[in-house]
Amino acid sequence: MVDIATRVWNHKWKIDPIVRSLIDTDFYKLLMCQSVFRNKPDTKVTFSLINRTKSVRLAEIVDEGELREQLDHIRSLSLSRGESTWMRGNTFYGKRQMFTPEFMDWFENLRLPPYHLEKRDGQYELTFEGSWPEVMLWEIPALAVLMELRSRAVLNSLRKFELQVLYARAMTKLWEKVERLRGVEGLRIADFGTRRRHSFLWQDWCVQAMTERLGDNFVGTSNCLIAKNRDLEAIGTNAHELPMVYAALAKTDDDLKQAPYEVLSDWHEEHDGNLRIILPDTYGTKGFLDRAPDWLAGWTGIRIDSGDPAEGAETAINWWRDRGEDPKDKLIIFSDGLDEDKILSLHKQFVGRVKVSFGWGTLLTNDFRDLTPDNSLAPFSLVCKAVAANGTPTVKLSDNPRKAMGPKDQIERYKRVFGVGKQEEMEVVV
Amino acid sequence: MVDIATRVWNHKWKIDPIVRSLIDTDFYKLLMCQSVFRNKPDTKVTFSLINRTKSVRLAEIVDEGELREQLDHIRSLSLSRGESTWMRGNTFYGKRQMFTPEFMDWFENLRLPPYHLEKRDGQYELTFEGSWPEVMLWEIPALAVLMELRSRAVLNSLRKFELQVLYARAMTKLWEKVERLRGVEGLRIADFGTRRRHSFLWQDWCVQAMTERLGDNFVGTSNCLIAKNRDLEAIGTNAHELPMVYAALAKTDDDLKQAPYEVLSDWHEEHDGNLRIILPDTYGTKGFLDRAPDWLAGWTGIRIDSGDPAEGAETAINWWRDRGEDPKDKLIIFSDGLDEDKILSLHKQFVGRVKVSFGWGTLLTNDFRDLTPDNSLAPFSLVCKAVAANGTPTVKLSDNPRKAMGPKDQIERYKRVFGVGKQEEMEVVV
Repeated sequence: MVDIATRVWNHKWKIDPIVRSLIDTDFYKLLMCQSVFRNKPDTKVTFSLINRTKSVRLAEIVDEGELREQLDHIRSLSLSRGESTWMRGNTFYGKRQMFTPEFMDWFENLRLPPYHLEKRDGQYELTFEGSWPEVMLWEIPALAVLMELRSRAVLNSLRKFELQVLYARAMTKLWEKVERLRGVEGLRIADFGTRRRHSFLWQDWCVQAMTERLGDNFVGTSNCLIAKNRDLEAIGTNAHELPMVYAALAKTDDDLKQAPYEVLSDWHEEHDGNLRIILPDTYGTKGFLDRAPDWLAGWTGIRIDSGDPAEGAETAINWWRDRGEDPKDKLIIFSDGLDEDKILSLHKQFVGRVKVSFGWGTLLTNDFRDLTPDNSLAPFSLVCKAVAANGTPTVKLSDNPRKAMGPKDQIERYKRVFGVGKQEEMEVVV
Repeated sequence: MVDIATRVWNHKWKIDPIVRSLIDTDFYKLLMCQSVFRNKPDTKVTFSLINRTKSVRLAEIVDEGELREQLDHIRSLSLSRGESTWMRGNTFYGKRQMFTPEFMDWFENLRLPPYHLEKRDGQYELTFEGSWPEVMLWEIPALAVLMELRSRAVLNSLRKFELQVLYARAMTKLWEKVERLRGVEGLRIADFGTRRRHSFLWQDWCVQAMTERLGDNFVGTSNCLIAKNRDLEAIGTNAHELPMVYAALAKTDDDLKQAPYEVLSDWHEEHDGNLRIILPDTYGTKGFLDRAPDWLAGWTGIRIDSGDPAEGAETAINWWRDRGEDPKDKLIIFSDGLDEDKILSLHKQFVGRVKVSFGWGTLLTNDFRDLTPDNSLAPFSLVCKAVAANGTPTVKLSDNPRKAMGPKDQIERYKRVFGVGKQEEMEVVV
């Protein structure tokens, strides 16, 4: 049993790495990495850290020396024998040898590429450049390092007793949320909280709490290291970076229009079953579905990651019906800004009409809101995104314009190409 | 920083004593012991354990072997050098040498006398017989042992993770209570929770929480060991056992009527200031005050330990006024079944009219209500009382007939002698 408060108090941070393994990352990163390794290995990309919560002035909170130390440590990591064995030998989504010998040989020899760090306007500019399959693996560890260094900077000012009370209250808070989710018929929840976790130990504790209390309703974690250590299912499929980079690589407007489907066509060849999950919102869900080829309707499900989630789910259900599919056979995964209230209401609204699953992220692994007097541990909206591919800037539109990314003129071009009209702005919670 | 959950999990109970020192007891026990040592050293008394919560069948929960082991361990304790130094050298209530060299010489050589234990009707009959100053020191450790063995028996069935959540929730619960008491102008609270604590470590944690959060509003603890270890004031004055034994020793009804005042007359010679606190309810508060000699009105305060506390306080205030005293100079100590709501409302009602202080007991150091599914850790009402003195049974009437004790005919006799009429029954919370 880990006493997190004591660990936090006793730790000399310098000898305690935040990211302790190359597989302390989201499972979908590895799946996507293998896909990229196979289909687009020579693409050059730039990933960049973006703090959407400008009021959290990271460069004033987090020491640059400590940040470099943690990032350098991540560059020193390589896949351990046990980790390699787990990836090679484990069954993922019911399938053996999910990762090919070619990919594993490459991954076993991988070290993460250099980073570029500077301060600007109270924020860190942290960028990674290089070949796509290498650079993409920086995303999750970079986010986890910044999030946890921010936590540590705040915790550093607390006395022992305050730390103990803080964690007792955080545990109670999470426990009460999990209690509310317990015993809800048919509920399926996974931990998606690696990138914005309060800390590694805390995420690990949250996963234990879910395991203890939710039983089979807790279906697994996106974090491979925790999945391996705790003998849980590793969960995840694919993310926006695939269509964003494929789109940036498109030479003409027509190619651009096809890019999101090309991504899924590559994916279709490699995966089946629960791994065939559409993420339709990169350039607007509605247009994406309207123009989708029929084979996509045969996929297992849709992940809804922006916009009004209930509306998105209704759109998906209608789309399946229009394409002659029975929504009851389909899976909808909600993964945007969830907390227990939203989970319960979405579950109630859609259970029985469609299969529903939840990827619970930041408010599972980092809900320290209102636990410090100035709310200095509240989570904030940090992302690390592919911002360019082979020298061309990437664009994301999303179903919420506040989540849009890219140069203004390119956003306009994408909106035109993808026929995205007026969008409803929604607050980005986390 | 003690991680209580881990300690509980790791502990092999057999090597971890519940009572770890002869001064792991209430301060008033030591004050009364000195008084008895001086005034009634040859009195033979019997103390007996009484579980007022019959539904908690202690003998079915607590293993007899473990109970004997803990009691035997207490008999092996003697005052350590550091403890003796603290008692001899410390300032109590602003006074040096509170304990006389004669008393300390005796106390340093003391070992607690034998106990008698048997099971009956699902309960333990635990009795102590011998000279008053020795036997009286069994009360607090005997209660603490039974309470904690009951806690341990329940905790023993919990898994590690459950223990961690349990203590996180208990800490959060207490922290929220203390938060409510924080910053209340003029509030004075002491820990009176030794006898019915969940465990020693837990009491110690509760005291730390009060120290951290309440600052000067937390005036100290009745527990001498914790007061010594944490450099706090040791708090307490006197208890029912003095008038109960004095009364039992009375040969005639007239002597009986005078006994409670004789107690206080002995006390008056030994103590002044904040140690001159009247405990008026042993044989009915109203009659006691009506018949009290005038010098008693000059005492510093009154402790209210049964009956309706607000009513008792009004009675005391009126009594002082009748005797020409200004209630504003007087102190009322509430110590019966307190929780934060009652503390706040009593404080609000009496602040400014009289000095007010609170001795917060069971619901400070043992509020594990509703933290286990079957409420198996809820505190219960266990007492250990002087039941006979020199062969005569003792009697307590109290201001709540449910707290009355003694043979029926003697209760009637006492009621007649002390002029106690009809009393209002009130639930005994803890």
